[in-house]
Amino acid sequence: MEKEEFNLEILEKIIQEKNVNALRELFESIALIDIAEVADRIDDPKELLFIFKTVKSETTAEFFSYLTPEVQEKLVRVFTDKDLMTLIASSYTDDIADFLMDMPANLVERILNITDKQTREVVNRLLNYKENTAGSIMTTEYVTLKNSATVEEALAAIRKIGREAETVYTNFVIDEKRNLVGTVALDDLIFSEPKQLLTDIMVTDFITVEVNTDQEEVAQDFKRYNLDAMPVLNADHRLVGIVTVDDIIDVIEQEVSEDMAKMAAVSPLEDSYIKSSVWALAKKCIPWLIILLVLGVGASIVLNIFEHSLSTLPILAAFLPILMDGGGNSGNQTTVLVTRSLALKEITPKDFLKVIWKELRVSLIVSAFVGLFAFGWVLFEFGTGILGYDELIGLSGWSWFAQAGLVASLVAITLAGAIILSKTIGAVLPLGAKAAGLDPAVVASPLLTTIVDVCALLLYFFLSAQVFNLI
Amino acid sequence: MEKEEFNLEILEKIIQEKNVNALRELFESIALIDIAEVADRIDDPKELLFIFKTVKSETTAEFFSYLTPEVQEKLVRVFTDKDLMTLIASSYTDDIADFLMDMPANLVERILNITDKQTREVVNRLLNYKENTAGSIMTTEYVTLKNSATVEEALAAIRKIGREAETVYTNFVIDEKRNLVGTVALDDLIFSEPKQLLTDIMVTDFITVEVNTDQEEVAQDFKRYNLDAMPVLNADHRLVGIVTVDDIIDVIEQEVSEDMAKMAAVSPLEDSYIKSSVWALAKKCIPWLIILLVLGVGASIVLNIFEHSLSTLPILAAFLPILMDGGGNSGNQTTVLVTRSLALKEITPKDFLKVIWKELRVSLIVSAFVGLFAFGWVLFEFGTGILGYDELIGLSGWSWFAQAGLVASLVAITLAGAIILSKTIGAVLPLGAKAAGLDPAVVASPLLTTIVDVCALLLYFFLSAQVFNLI
Repeated sequence: MEKEEFNLEILEKIIQEKNVNALRELFESIALIDIAEVADRIDDPKELLFIFKTVKSETTAEFFSYLTPEVQEKLVRVFTDKDLMTLIASSYTDDIADFLMDMPANLVERILNITDKQTREVVNRLLNYKENTAGSIMTTEYVTLKNSATVEEALAAIRKIGREAETVYTNFVIDEKRNLVGTVALDDLIFSEPKQLLTDIMVTDFITVEVNTDQEEVAQDFKRYNLDAMPVLNADHRLVGIVTVDDIIDVIEQEVSEDMAKMAAVSPLEDSYIKSSVWALAKKCIPWLIILLVLGVGASIVLNIFEHSLSTLPILAAFLPILMDGGGNSGNQTTVLVTRSLALKEITPKDFLKVIWKELRVSLIVSAFVGLFAFGWVLFEFGTGILGYDELIGLSGWSWFAQAGLVASLVAITLAGAIILSKTIGAVLPLGAKAAGLDPAVVASPLLTTIVDVCALLLYFFLSAQVFNLI
Repeated sequence: MEKEEFNLEILEKIIQEKNVNALRELFESIALIDIAEVADRIDDPKELLFIFKTVKSETTAEFFSYLTPEVQEKLVRVFTDKDLMTLIASSYTDDIADFLMDMPANLVERILNITDKQTREVVNRLLNYKENTAGSIMTTEYVTLKNSATVEEALAAIRKIGREAETVYTNFVIDEKRNLVGTVALDDLIFSEPKQLLTDIMVTDFITVEVNTDQEEVAQDFKRYNLDAMPVLNADHRLVGIVTVDDIIDVIEQEVSEDMAKMAAVSPLEDSYIKSSVWALAKKCIPWLIILLVLGVGASIVLNIFEHSLSTLPILAAFLPILMDGGGNSGNQTTVLVTRSLALKEITPKDFLKVIWKELRVSLIVSAFVGLFAFGWVLFEFGTGILGYDELIGLSGWSWFAQAGLVASLVAITLAGAIILSKTIGAVLPLGAKAAGLDPAVVASPLLTTIVDVCALLLYFFLSAQVFNLI
């Protein structure tokens, strides 16, 4: 069957007919995750159980790991202890830990009770590692080989114990004291002579992480060194687990989502957007809105002080939005580019002067173009009557141009100044935050608008006071 | 040697002493990419050449691929034809294509001239696939196995031809007509009996892409199905290449950087931030700033029309920034969350009503909290004298509260209304863009601020006209 043809009705029909062969064939032709997505919509736990009992036992653990926590819970409630034991025995420890995290306490207890002591210890340890560390995403099923082994002995060992491991593509070579001394890739084993020693073909410049290393750093190393598995060491430098590349792709996606949320003034969500409750979303949105409201006091004070200018020359008000937005937008461009560049480790706070110098030149070019355009655009707004300016009434020719040009220059110069200022600040903030050990994504964007608003408004009123003798 | 101790001086010293052994040892203990990063800073092409001539030939092609285009070019200019031939012969075709893209025309010609015909054809084809498609990132070095083979024949074939392949972890099974009929993982070969048939152990529900498929979709499939390699088919459904997981991590990073840039109103950069020239950056920043400036005309018109209100009740001006920023920020929160969720395919435009209903409820909660806070905050600003409001002079007790409370309510209600409106629009825009086949990241954020500014200002002046009888 093609993926496109497969849907809930077909699955329900197979289940209701108890068509064992059709179900087995389905599992042959459609990817597990696609079946799981459809099965997620089945309400009756007994129907889910039928799937479990029918398909091949090698498949069920992986299939189970793709179901949503709600469906998993439903299933566990109808499982016999024997069903549960089989599931636990065939699951990887990191999957068990992930799944237990979402279960209610009484089910966790029941599951841990029927789990053998060794697995239970491993799962408990995984559950106890701090979230978002290498320890919390690592798995404990991997192949260790002795450094005295030959290639053929290593292959024999992999054939024997490899099925339980999450990967056999990277294997770990230890000495008699169980210190990690090298890694050996499966393809290198295949390409080598059977009698060669592991010590001759193993990689010795391997990269390791500590259990407490932040998962984002682990992801950086994976990308940089093109790894497919990485050893995790404890404080005593002993091998305690491995991180595999499929977990890393999830980490990258998660970290990116967090960075994006932070830059948009949302505290990072614990769950995906669609799984987050209305309350959870509101709770993540409110704090920064309130902080920004309070920080907005600066701009309010400036407008309060210069309200006299607005009363005297009301046309000034019309350009407040483009000046504040223009400054904010151009600064935000820089902040986002610099923050992303920091996240990708293309730059570090050491590049401070280099980046500032770059943005200063960029901002000069941008402000020249945008400023010139703004000058023409304001004249156009006046000329076409889109905006009404009382002082222009009755004027024409040069005297019209002189009066309209005065306001247009004021707007253009203020905008150009705001762009230069905000691009420079937009570079300084994330670099400064990073240097101070703070998260550039959190600090930079919200602070930027606040600072830029105040500066743009001050510049605007200061210049207009000079030009129009307003004070 | 530890990575931390390694630096440019050490490398220069080794080169100047022509210490062949020390260099070889370096390549044993430090990752290639780390050495390449230091070597990038060497100016003298002859010194670079010394590294190339000294280290093991298996290592040079990969090492070369990690160098910057500038250093690669420097090296190619001092290479003899024989050096070049060796390099090309040991490089993967996708690496050759990547490297040729950055070389000046005369060098490209020289390189293609000394490349054997077969490789040249492959490289030319790769260079011709449209950028950002599966074809442009695929490699042509992979292992195909016949569907009539046994496990032991397959392993023998892999041992023979696998060294040339970019991966042997996923191998491709074809029938006598060269149609792809299955994939077989190296570990499954290792775990199977030598006499078993490939057809018994191969995976038949494999996922494929077409050469013209966008790389972002390829990345989505890799994530969804936890792949480490994926077959690429041409229009005739024949296997023409494979994409491997290490290329996919780069794709994910690149797509994310593009999305972030777009959401910050920057056209996507062709290069990384740090490699982009000042002019290139300015060119990417200017267009959206000008578009936003033009779109800002809406807010300007509103302020122009209601300038009388500002003259009559100047205190209104003080709250313009927090109303516009508050509306923009809260809408941007929603836009970024929804756009990201669309990019991760957690939601599709079909979830329109579901998402709008969710955001409506979120916005009601957020607006209630932030509105209430704003009410108190404005009273605080008046009470402490942070903001001066002429009408309050001489008032105290209830009459003070009645007058100050009137402005505070006006600000609070406008802000609450702006939040509800902007969060709803913030959800509609990316979903609508996606449904219309446009890029949600490009369309949503810039349009949002423009629309929200106008709405927030209209609401503000409309309400204040009612409350204070301004018109």
